[in-house]
Amino acid sequence: MAGKSKLLKIYVGETERYQDKPLYQYLVYWLKDKGIVGVTVNRGIEGYGQDKILHTARFLELSSDLPMILEVVDRADKIEALIPDICKIVPKGLVFTVDLEVHKYGNTP
Amino acid sequence: MAGKSKLLKIYVGETERYQDKPLYQYLVYWLKDKGIVGVTVNRGIEGYGQDKILHTARFLELSSDLPMILEVVDRADKIEALIPDICKIVPKGLVFTVDLEVHKYGNTP
Amino acid sequence: MAGKSKLLKIYVGETERYQDKPLYQYLVYWLKDKGIVGVTVNRGIEGYGQDKILHTARFLELSSDLPMILEVVDRADKIEALIPDICKIVPKGLVFTVDLEVHKYGNTP
Repeated sequence: MAGKSKLLKIYVGETERYQDKPLYQYLVYWLKDKGIVGVTVNRGIEGYGQDKILHTARFLELSSDLPMILEVVDRADKIEALIPDICKIVPKGLVFTVDLEVHKYGNTP
Repeated sequence: MAGKSKLLKIYVGETERYQDKPLYQYLVYWLKDKGIVGVTVNRGIEGYGQDKILHTARFLELSSDLPMILEVVDRADKIEALIPDICKIVPKGLVFTVDLEVHKYGNTP
Repeated sequence: MAGKSKLLKIYVGETERYQDKPLYQYLVYWLKDKGIVGVTVNRGIEGYGQDKILHTARFLELSSDLPMILEVVDRADKIEALIPDICKIVPKGLVFTVDLEVHKYGNTP
């Protein structure tokens, strides 16, 4: 992965849906389709966002919309080109990027 | 979220307590109270810190103090203003910040 | 932790092995042995990498090679010195670093 790289993080709710799929799953397939080389998904155990409602896995009886966190690493230009579309797909989540230095990606030397 | 933003990460132990609450829960409520717009909590499955004791979910029989990781994103000035207090509340964890570029936060345009 | 610091992230597959150990466990012990002050391990619930095969915890019936994510924070010079060796140990994962500012590490003042 020559050139500048970026980490893209996308935070959505576990129960948010897009085109009859969970939004986070839709994003994974969409990013794969766009040629992004790798995506990782994590589920947070607790969190709150702009609505200020605390979602948590602590109380099983509460229906909880836990945070789903997607991490994407690729060339800066590839990630920047996708951000306008991602911001449309993600209506109320958080989307940010961080500059990073890639030392190894897959079995490239 | 106009202006410069930061990611704040706080690492504490799952069993650490503060004012009769788990420390990580205390921090979530404290950050909410301070007007921070979003917090996510993750539980690591393994880790060690300054004490060099490996905590892991691999061995169920070992009482394990797994790492709890809080991620906070907000305006740089808001986060910087809270750091001295956070360092007092977190007596032996890790607290760091990273510069980032926010593309979308909630349903703001 | 005086001076510049870095966050090092290493992504490997849960089933990858190295010297008769799971690779991620080998890395935790190896980093500890090298004097790195703290490591945290997270297991992603879904992801794909260079092979473009989606690994997911959604379908229990599929044998899944979930992503394991190691986070390491230490002085920049200590981390940089280890990167060539890490890239040899991790044959097909992702290894990157991000600059950060440490505000607190353990019970140092």
